[in-house]
Amino acid sequence: MALIVQKYGGTSVGSVERIKNVAKRVAKTRAEGHDVVVVVSAMSGETNRLVALANEMQAFPDPRELDVVLSTGEQVTIGLLAMALKDIGVDAKSYTGWQVAVQTDTAHSKARIEQIDDSKMRADLQAGRVVIVAGFQGVTADGDISTLGRGGSDTSAVALAAALKADECQIYTDVDGVYTTDPRVVPEARRMDTVSFDEMLELASLGSKVLQIRSVEFAGKYKVRLRVLSSLQEGGDGTLITFEEDENMEQAIVSGIAFDKNQARINVRGVPDKPGIAYQILGAVADANIDVDMIIQNVGNEGTTDFSFTVPRGDYQPTLDLLGKLKNTIGADEVSGDDSVCKVSIVGVGMRSHVGVASRMFRALAADNINIQMISTSEIKISVLIDEKYMELATRVLHKEFELDKEKEA
Amino acid sequence: MALIVQKYGGTSVGSVERIKNVAKRVAKTRAEGHDVVVVVSAMSGETNRLVALANEMQAFPDPRELDVVLSTGEQVTIGLLAMALKDIGVDAKSYTGWQVAVQTDTAHSKARIEQIDDSKMRADLQAGRVVIVAGFQGVTADGDISTLGRGGSDTSAVALAAALKADECQIYTDVDGVYTTDPRVVPEARRMDTVSFDEMLELASLGSKVLQIRSVEFAGKYKVRLRVLSSLQEGGDGTLITFEEDENMEQAIVSGIAFDKNQARINVRGVPDKPGIAYQILGAVADANIDVDMIIQNVGNEGTTDFSFTVPRGDYQPTLDLLGKLKNTIGADEVSGDDSVCKVSIVGVGMRSHVGVASRMFRALAADNINIQMISTSEIKISVLIDEKYMELATRVLHKEFELDKEKEA
Repeated sequence: MALIVQKYGGTSVGSVERIKNVAKRVAKTRAEGHDVVVVVSAMSGETNRLVALANEMQAFPDPRELDVVLSTGEQVTIGLLAMALKDIGVDAKSYTGWQVAVQTDTAHSKARIEQIDDSKMRADLQAGRVVIVAGFQGVTADGDISTLGRGGSDTSAVALAAALKADECQIYTDVDGVYTTDPRVVPEARRMDTVSFDEMLELASLGSKVLQIRSVEFAGKYKVRLRVLSSLQEGGDGTLITFEEDENMEQAIVSGIAFDKNQARINVRGVPDKPGIAYQILGAVADANIDVDMIIQNVGNEGTTDFSFTVPRGDYQPTLDLLGKLKNTIGADEVSGDDSVCKVSIVGVGMRSHVGVASRMFRALAADNINIQMISTSEIKISVLIDEKYMELATRVLHKEFELDKEKEA
Repeated sequence: MALIVQKYGGTSVGSVERIKNVAKRVAKTRAEGHDVVVVVSAMSGETNRLVALANEMQAFPDPRELDVVLSTGEQVTIGLLAMALKDIGVDAKSYTGWQVAVQTDTAHSKARIEQIDDSKMRADLQAGRVVIVAGFQGVTADGDISTLGRGGSDTSAVALAAALKADECQIYTDVDGVYTTDPRVVPEARRMDTVSFDEMLELASLGSKVLQIRSVEFAGKYKVRLRVLSSLQEGGDGTLITFEEDENMEQAIVSGIAFDKNQARINVRGVPDKPGIAYQILGAVADANIDVDMIIQNVGNEGTTDFSFTVPRGDYQPTLDLLGKLKNTIGADEVSGDDSVCKVSIVGVGMRSHVGVASRMFRALAADNINIQMISTSEIKISVLIDEKYMELATRVLHKEFELDKEKEA
């Protein structure tokens, strides 16, 4: 008998029939003798419908009020799923974010979970009930409704699993596991039985879209056993995310290729090459709550330097506006950018012990005339920023170059 | 400078355009120097959509979970209206039922308000903000979401007006006031400038559908100045509900005709004519949370009596089932009923000082061959239960009989 947190995304609860299927799946897990906490998203399409309504009210909807509106999507799903479970004889109780006190900070639309009160959930589990919690949402210390941002239901699930010390957190999605890359781009992409936490982190953050990055960070921090499974097909063990490097683990040099179109490049040229300049530029961006991803500083001419970084595409114009205003203060010659770029990355723990991975990557891209605009590297990944029109080609080229279509030896 | 609570129903907020119109109306009241608290319903159609979803999950949706689902309708509206107000430069803040702590009992889907915490609203009003509160919903002492039942937004508005000691509670609806009867049934129906609280109470409870009964009771109890206005047309003072009998008041014998199709008759025949029998029957019905309206006990034969009462039509079958089970215990010969009945009532404070009103009513109905099944009277109204197919005819006949189409002398 284990305690399992199961998370079902928007597609998995996208219709009355699908919600009933989720209820059956939950009932099956209950019948196997496990305690179950279910985290659900809004029915697919619902969040978009609500965003469209909000946009008709205000060009830039008030963040606090937008969270009030958006959080209703998951609230509908929890109630419906509780009914579906009761209808097949499984006792269940639903909770919104505020009802289980998923307390967050006040950054509306991208709030971070600070603490969770598990008392109500524990009481229900002890009483033999399935607990259903609305994903994606929380409540601030002041009692305002907050949301965690798109994909935040994954984070809710992992955070609840951590708070409850669950044995496993299962993320049900429309894919049956983590692939070496997106099968829609590379048909030869393979499902991995296991993927290391570090790899998963890079794959998620770089846009593999299977799991939301914050959820993987959370899982790593609190050592939550995390599994990705398909909610649409029966059977299959999905992909387990591992946190210790196992001798028996698949040890390819490169495990997967990630890509991310949600990138825009900002260039700040000709700033004085003096201490504190990076902080002056990036501090202002961070203060505006804009996430910066790749950062590069080049040596320029005559005591000046060029500074480039990437931001999410939705933050492109605000960032340009912000730095345009700061241009004189920081003494820059020019603030410019490009929002038709993308990031392609190779990821793999095996990279650590292999030299020449980077040059092999660059050579493969060059062979197809794909120009590299920025490069950033970490111990287990190498990312390049390229023109977005080459994204699919670059992914296919690299998938083949590192032989990800072939079964690895154990 | 006054404090005004304005309530807008589902039709008034039924589209993006209409929500924007409500925002303009609120802004106008602000511009006149008043503090405004706005109570809104779900966008029209939304509650029905949610009920349909719930019914697909469970034939009889779990009441707690149904409230979780239904309460999202108003939550969407409050967020959207706050955005619409901010978009035209009016500072505003939205609150769900639990956020302003509209505390209710635990009778899901027909909860009663127990107390309201006005501290957040007062702070916002003081800061110059319009406060927007979701109607129809509250929170139980245990932190469960509750709803007040259909039309409960009116009650929310009046309860908030009472808690805030507002100068006036304005109910905006799709009619421009209270009429002598439904103009769709009787085209000659007239709008009343004022109507007494007692009359309004009877008109609302008997199905005039302009205001929800509990809201009028609440207004009477807490002496809330209540006005019904049209949200769809500009200008007009609507109908003011008065609580003191004024010398100058319109003093017709009969003020209005109400009708109500949400009626079903239950007959319990041949029960022992002994003390406590009424309690035995009606106590069981009340325990099942079923509202009983008209009650009649006839003398029967040989120490037995016949007992008849009416319940809302949705409770017809449950009531029959309940009493069917109790039949032997209470020693009844037969439990039967009819759910194709309706109630038509004449209402008026002037009735008190006029004899012969009842006989005039019965004669008018008899002249058109309308058979009366049950009669109940109070100081200011006379109700008859008749076959529902005669409802419109009876209403027209009585409207004409009491000359409600003619202007009254002041």
